[in-house]
Amino acid sequence: MENVVAGVDIGGTNTVFGLVDKAGKVLAEGHLKTTDYPEVSDFVRALGSEIKNLVSDQSNVELAGVGIGAPDANYHRGTIEHAPNLAWKGIVPLADLVKKEVGVPVVVTNDANAAAMGEMIFGGAKNMKNFIVLTLGTGLGSGIVIDGKMVYGHTGFAGEVGHMTVVPGGRVCGCERKGCLEAYASASGLVRTVSELISVMREDSILRDIPPSQLTAKQISEAASKGDPVAVRAMEYTAEKLGFGIVNSIVFSSPEAIFLFGGLAQAGEAIFAPVRKYLQQYNYILFKDTVKILPSGVPESNGAVLGSAALILNELSLG
Amino acid sequence: MENVVAGVDIGGTNTVFGLVDKAGKVLAEGHLKTTDYPEVSDFVRALGSEIKNLVSDQSNVELAGVGIGAPDANYHRGTIEHAPNLAWKGIVPLADLVKKEVGVPVVVTNDANAAAMGEMIFGGAKNMKNFIVLTLGTGLGSGIVIDGKMVYGHTGFAGEVGHMTVVPGGRVCGCERKGCLEAYASASGLVRTVSELISVMREDSILRDIPPSQLTAKQISEAASKGDPVAVRAMEYTAEKLGFGIVNSIVFSSPEAIFLFGGLAQAGEAIFAPVRKYLQQYNYILFKDTVKILPSGVPESNGAVLGSAALILNELSLG
Repeated sequence: MENVVAGVDIGGTNTVFGLVDKAGKVLAEGHLKTTDYPEVSDFVRALGSEIKNLVSDQSNVELAGVGIGAPDANYHRGTIEHAPNLAWKGIVPLADLVKKEVGVPVVVTNDANAAAMGEMIFGGAKNMKNFIVLTLGTGLGSGIVIDGKMVYGHTGFAGEVGHMTVVPGGRVCGCERKGCLEAYASASGLVRTVSELISVMREDSILRDIPPSQLTAKQISEAASKGDPVAVRAMEYTAEKLGFGIVNSIVFSSPEAIFLFGGLAQAGEAIFAPVRKYLQQYNYILFKDTVKILPSGVPESNGAVLGSAALILNELSLG
Repeated sequence: MENVVAGVDIGGTNTVFGLVDKAGKVLAEGHLKTTDYPEVSDFVRALGSEIKNLVSDQSNVELAGVGIGAPDANYHRGTIEHAPNLAWKGIVPLADLVKKEVGVPVVVTNDANAAAMGEMIFGGAKNMKNFIVLTLGTGLGSGIVIDGKMVYGHTGFAGEVGHMTVVPGGRVCGCERKGCLEAYASASGLVRTVSELISVMREDSILRDIPPSQLTAKQISEAASKGDPVAVRAMEYTAEKLGFGIVNSIVFSSPEAIFLFGGLAQAGEAIFAPVRKYLQQYNYILFKDTVKILPSGVPESNGAVLGSAALILNELSLG
């Protein structure tokens, strides 16, 4: 019998999961629509039964544990707490609930921490002890590894670099505070930047023909790669703010690398080149040329499942 | 024979050192004038001989190791590197030099890391796994402990919170970058803030009678405690900037406490009260009421010696 684990990524709309072996091979995958389960107990029953089915479809494998990445998840307590994007309100003891269903160890953390664990076990950080993963999606998540260990902090919620204040008194963030990094360096922040630049600049831009409510980060990064002046300047502005967040992270923990993951990182050199430029410009002298800015080494397509799987493999010392 | 260690604090002007036992009792102390030794080899010989004399003056003690706190010190490499406030230029292999002189293990780190180690072994962080010490002196130093371990990072220089950018495009810092926390929340930053406020405010203030070049943080905090309006506002302004630095640190590593150490912290409630107020105001909701702002639990008078001693006690697992 070979030990395998299940990696689960719970999103506001969809939940994806897969069986993963110690080498990081995804043996089987499945998904559920998160929004089909307004009651968490129904969700846990469905998830448990799906995972058991995946295991029994394989020959000679045994489930050793389940790793779960979820929004507003607390590693120490195994909970999801007051997640605004999920129907399950209050404090949900998810790890305990799933453990009762599947009968093996279960760990929970937020999706960015899972991404960082995936990077460490299966990706570009295999030989690194100190690195940070920034997930540039609708928001900005972060997973921080120091001295080979994930940073959870006193509360279990550490690694909220997206809520660093980079512009005091700046844009209102989803958290209702002002000037958070996430309000600038994320897909939604990039869209807001284009609106700001359209008001300031006079150059032609195809982005002026798209209603702001329908504008996507992908359209902006495609326009940037074609040289659209508003889009190019929006990427520069985003990279500068991200540069401040990165420099502030570097002076704190002195990582070897910062990995950029998620939708915005898919823009490639349109975002990496200006981020590297601003890092060079703003970095503190002690850390000059000590930090690499890298794309994720985990395939985007099943990165979430691999990250959650890495979390439990690491916990069980199987990775 | 009882094992003791030597704690050494190297400053730009003075070096203080002492013999410390495992319980944190300072058995004997001494000092050297750092500036008397333009050659590091002479300094190391003098320091070694002073330490050996202190040991031989005690009965039944044996030197187990030496911990050194110094500016621009690198823990990984045991070096002092390009310290602008010392006569010893370039990269000085201090740990190796001292080890050759005294024949016992030697560790080196910066003074703020030593202060944090002192807090963990002898001070207010004895039962904490996650905390940060901010040393508010002429500059702003920081020592970060995560999961019970000092954070040195990939380079060995981690913990430079004073060089976090809190005001993009703000005051020029000693490091020549703009808007660093240290340019606001330090003794020198406080003096700069008074000059700024004197230009802006019309209220009477005894601080208007002191030449800016002679103004000290102590005078300002004394004036604040008497209700001087410029001084009170300067403390508020300093606390607000420090609040941003603290909140940015909290979202990163989620500590249980932030200890304020050094001259500016001696102002007591004049600085603690507004720092707590701004923390409450600016803190991210996940971390609300999870972080204590505390004065150091290590006596200021021999805090530097105790911190450096704690560093080597921890290294030798004697603490």
